[in-house]
Order: sequence, then C-alpha cells, then structure tokens
Amino acid sequence: MHVERIRLDHFNIPLPAVLSDATHGAMSCFGLLTARVTDSDGAEGLGYSYVVGNIGGAAVHALLSRDLAPLLLGRAAADREGAWAAMWRHAHFVGRGGLAAFALATLDIALWDLAGQTANAPWYRLLGGSRRPVQAYAGGIDLQLSLNDLLRQTDGFLAQGFRAVKMKVGRPNLAEDAARVAAMRRHLGPELPLMVDANMQWNAFQAIQAARAFAAADVFWLEEPTIPDDYAAHARIAQEGGLPIATGENLHSVYEFQHMLEIGRIAFPEPDLVTLGGVTPWLKVAHLCAARNLPVTTHGVHDLHVHLLAAAPNASYLEVHGFGLERFMPESLTLTDGAIRPPDRPGHGVALDWERLAPFRDSRSVTIP
Amino acid sequence: MHVERIRLDHFNIPLPAVLSDATHGAMSCFGLLTARVTDSDGAEGLGYSYVVGNIGGAAVHALLSRDLAPLLLGRAAADREGAWAAMWRHAHFVGRGGLAAFALATLDIALWDLAGQTANAPWYRLLGGSRRPVQAYAGGIDLQLSLNDLLRQTDGFLAQGFRAVKMKVGRPNLAEDAARVAAMRRHLGPELPLMVDANMQWNAFQAIQAARAFAAADVFWLEEPTIPDDYAAHARIAQEGGLPIATGENLHSVYEFQHMLEIGRIAFPEPDLVTLGGVTPWLKVAHLCAARNLPVTTHGVHDLHVHLLAAAPNASYLEVHGFGLERFMPESLTLTDGAIRPPDRPGHGVALDWERLAPFRDSRSVTIP
Repeated sequence: MHVERIRLDHFNIPLPAVLSDATHGAMSCFGLLTARVTDSDGAEGLGYSYVVGNIGGAAVHALLSRDLAPLLLGRAAADREGAWAAMWRHAHFVGRGGLAAFALATLDIALWDLAGQTANAPWYRLLGGSRRPVQAYAGGIDLQLSLNDLLRQTDGFLAQGFRAVKMKVGRPNLAEDAARVAAMRRHLGPELPLMVDANMQWNAFQAIQAARAFAAADVFWLEEPTIPDDYAAHARIAQEGGLPIATGENLHSVYEFQHMLEIGRIAFPEPDLVTLGGVTPWLKVAHLCAARNLPVTTHGVHDLHVHLLAAAPNASYLEVHGFGLERFMPESLTLTDGAIRPPDRPGHGVALDWERLAPFRDSRSVTIP
Repeated sequence: MHVERIRLDHFNIPLPAVLSDATHGAMSCFGLLTARVTDSDGAEGLGYSYVVGNIGGAAVHALLSRDLAPLLLGRAAADREGAWAAMWRHAHFVGRGGLAAFALATLDIALWDLAGQTANAPWYRLLGGSRRPVQAYAGGIDLQLSLNDLLRQTDGFLAQGFRAVKMKVGRPNLAEDAARVAAMRRHLGPELPLMVDANMQWNAFQAIQAARAFAAADVFWLEEPTIPDDYAAHARIAQEGGLPIATGENLHSVYEFQHMLEIGRIAFPEPDLVTLGGVTPWLKVAHLCAARNLPVTTHGVHDLHVHLLAAAPNASYLEVHGFGLERFMPESLTLTDGAIRPPDRPGHGVALDWERLAPFRDSRSVTIP
C-alpha cells in the first residue's frame, strides 16, 4: 500500500482556563496541527501535533502542506523509517530539529496510526508491549496561582485519582518558590511523588541554589532548571544541587538527546514525540535511555505517549498535560489508582470530532494531491 | 523611533544553471524572503534571507507574517538586542534555532539596515571597521560537473579575478574525488588556496580517509566533512585526517557554535547570518572565534557578509556564493585582485529591484499592521 492522499488542517484551540509558566507566561490557547493520511487501500491514519500559544502553527502547516506531505505521496505507507529519513533530508537546510520536528511528527504519527489500522493492532501491541497500567502524574501549569488555589487545584487532581503531581516553580523570589514547594509537600503528605518544573528560568548557579532550597521537600525531580542549550549545566546542577534532573520537551532531535545524556547526565529524560519529530525518533531516544540504565518519561500528548510507555521496559511516569483534547474526543483515557491503560483500539486509538473542531479552524484546509 | 510598518514578501528564484552538492542533490531554485521595516520617521530597512530549493520558504514567510513581525510593531527600532531576544523568546517552543533562525534573521537584518540608514553609515563603519578589501573565494557548487567542466568553471572564476576557489567533493567513489582535487591543484598551480566541501556526506571514519586522500593537494580547508550534529567527530577528523576543518552553515544558534568550537575544535568557523538568525548572533559568534584565536569566515550572502568581515579583526575569506542576487540589484560588488570592498552606501547598501522580482512571487505579500 502506498500513500495516496493527505489532508492537513490547523486549528487554534482556546484553553478553558489561562495557564502559566516561567518561560511562556500566560497561555490562553494552543495550535493543533492534524494530518489524515489515506493509503491505496482506503485506510486512514491520523497524526496530530500542538504548538504553545499557537505560535508557529501557521508555519508548521505551511511546511507540511508545501514541502513534506507532497514528498510522501506514492511512497510505501509501511516504510516509516524511509519516510522519516526522506523528510529529514528534504527539509535539512531549514530543519535539523527546530520547527521542522513538529511537522515531521505530524506525518510520522499518521503513518504509525495507519500501520496500526492496517495490522488491526493498537500501538502498545505493535511495539511489543502489553495493556498494562502506566503510572501517571498531573502536570500542573500553575505558576501564577495563589498558594491557596495551587492547593485547591491539587485537591482536584487527587480527587480525579492522581497519585503524583507536578507544580511550576520560577517565581521572581526563590524563597516564595521554596515555601510553595514545602506547602505542597505538607499538603500531599510524605508518600506521593512531587515533581517541580522551572521551565528554563535559571542559569546553572541559580538552579543549584533552587535545588538546595527544595531538597527538604523530597522532590522527585527538578525539571528544566535551565536552557536546554547548556548541556553541561545540567550535570553541574544535579551534582551540586542534589536533585535528580528531568528535561527533554525542548530537544528536537535524537542527536540533541544524545548530547544531553552524554554531557548533561540527566536522570529523567522526557522526550515528547511531537517536539522530537514523531514515534520514530521517540523510540530511538527511549532505547538510548535504556542503554544508559535510565528511565524514560514523557511530556504532553498523553493520549499517544501512554502506548509508548506501556511498551517501554524502562518506563517512568506519564505526564497528563494541561493541553488536553478530551473535549474533541469521543473516547478518552481513564485514570484508575493513579495509572492509565492504553486503549485497545487499533493504532493510537484517538479519534477527533471534526465538527467540534470546525469553529476553531485557523489556516485553510489543504488536501494533497 | 519605533517600528511602524513591516512588509513581508516571498519569492521563488530560479537559478540560471542547475547546481549540485552531496546533500541537496540538484538545485534549480532558491527561496527569497524579504522584510521591509519602516520606522516612525519614514526610514526603511531591508532584510532578506534565502532557503535552498525554496524548501521551507512558505513556512518562514508564515512565521514572519503571523508570529514575529507583529511582535516588533511599536518597539524601539534601535533596540536590536531587545528585539532579537523578544523574538527568540516568543518563538522558543518551535524555535531555539532551526527554521525560526531564518525568520529572525530576516527581521534582524532589516533592523540593522535601518540603523545604518538612520546613522547615514554603512555597516562596516557602524561596526567599527574600515572600507578595506576583503579576500574572497569562489564557492563552486559543482559536484555533478565533469572534470573538464569543473576546470572550465575554474578558468571562469580566475578570469573574473578570483584568487581562491572552493570545489565540492562527496562523489560515490573517493578515488574519483581525490583525482578531481589533485587535478584542480595542478590546474591552479601551487599558490592559490583550494577549499573542498563535502556537504556532510561522510561519517567520521569516511571523512578521515577522505582527508588523507586529499592531503597531497594542499587543501586550505575541508568543509562539512560530516553532520553538524556530531560535534566530537569534527575534532577526530581534524586530528586523524590532518586537514583544517571548516563548518557552520547548518548551525542555527550561538549555542550550537559554542559546542562546535568547544567540542569540535574546528579551524574555520563559517557562520552564515541568514541561517544563524541575523547580524546580532553573527557578531557574537565572530567574537567567540576571536576569543579562541580563530579566524571567522562566512557562508553565502556575500553582499551582507562583506561588511561584517571588513569590521572583523579575525576575518578570513569571504565566500562568493552561487545563490547570487546580482540580477535583481542595481549595484553589486566588484572583485579586484581577489578581494572585495564593502559599498559606501548607508546600511548594507543593497537595494532590490522589486519589479524584476515580481514575476517570481510565491506566497502573497503581507503588510503589518
């Protein structure tokens, strides 16, 4: 079967509540990019990706429509490695990671979904995993919340069934961050994992001070303490700050992960299949982590990542992210005892309600050819 | 003076002859992105960038139109560092180099041109340099040429006044590459610098073999022997292969250059202000090179880089690139005794003939607000 037709869409999805972190400030929307790939048998695979604040959404849609989707037409649908390499090479001069990763991911995810449809197998099975429950945590995007609202939000997460929570740090005053982290630990009790996420707010020196200030609160990991470009800083922060370091959502290639693992010596690599370029490079990063005796965790897009973690022998926690698409899905994930099983439907098992999405259309729809 | 209006255009420029290298294959066109920034005094700055094969051109135009140009409206036109940091931060999630670098460059170059118009000073003077002749070399894009045609092309370069020439390598057979390099050396005589460019065709082992095969031809530098993602390979290729290594056109941030200098220990860093994000980061890379006692050379866009090298105390050769825009410029550079002086007109001194460009329009023109 070869790729016969590709439909590309771009939506601007408003968030039900404004979210905030140390780098992106207040976020009221995200961009959703979708690709529907139809093969010569009429089977269809769905790929989708997202961009914070819808920034770059139109550009990803343009790269998909003009440059990448035409490249896939007529190719063998099952040859996902070949397709991925062809897209990487074709877009190399403007690509090599960065914005191009989001476009590659959109099509790669669609080809993987198509493979699941064709094999009538859910991703977790296609990847050699089982329908086991994957431990999940609630990824709070809550830097601007008052302490009261932060604790109320946490109560909501616990009521939903979460047994692990992440909060944002990186407020202007470190003492305030430390007090909020300490209050969260008291609120959660001594058992439940608490992750903290600085969204690249500090340099190495500030991050070391912050890590030391949080240590008494038994923090499970300190996420994105500094910019992903400064690989070496991560090793120093871990060594001198004393907390396990997590990062990955802003790394856009297997090569960037290789440098972060080798030089940054992080404890919790967090590849996001959307920001990394798709399932194809995500699996390679997960294998790099296993070869270093490290767990692999994820960022965002929980509906897709739940399959990947269910098939990873070195899986750590799944993030359940604030940019949810549940409103637009006929069927979504269920949390039980702090864990989530992947769905048993073919492919990733996600369907989108196109009628509900229609009011949020941004760029014009493109069908190729 | 603040930024009052920005006009953005995208053209698909056919090349007079098909060019070829080891990574991009045959190239018959390039994309040209332009930004005309008008300040509240009515002064105008022109920025422009290019993309190989026009791939990603529509995406860069979309990122400029939708996300980056609106961010600059109302900002102080002179605050180029502030504008650049704001654009980097705004586009960070899809940016951090990659395709976003081309969009940042387009606007940054326009703001620098505007600064020159406002000060009535050419770039080389604004940057503390002088109108000195800058040594230039002809950047042949010629991998597919027969040996006869390669030597004929070289005769043409010499007749134009060039005193240094670069040729492509990376043909399927290394012996053939070595024979072409040896023939070029014989043709040029012992005096003239000969650079060779592999466009990332090899891995470290193949590149070391190639470097050794070219050594007898007294190669001035070996360019892009392998992928820019493999920093450490560059140091090995230099040490074991014995040739000075050049690279840079595919590095999209100051951070990436920092890693390449620190880990890759290259001899000839080649920042391209278009692929790096503009004049603002280019100057930082040139200073990093000087601090390591290294020269700085350039890739592409000779009309702009000639000013930067005329103001760099550590300047090496200027590349005169095959993606020329001379057809669309009322005034272009003059080569004398193998060197080029920057023009004495304000800013970068480049004007584009919009009527001549009109037939090559690709995306629709956008004016903001």
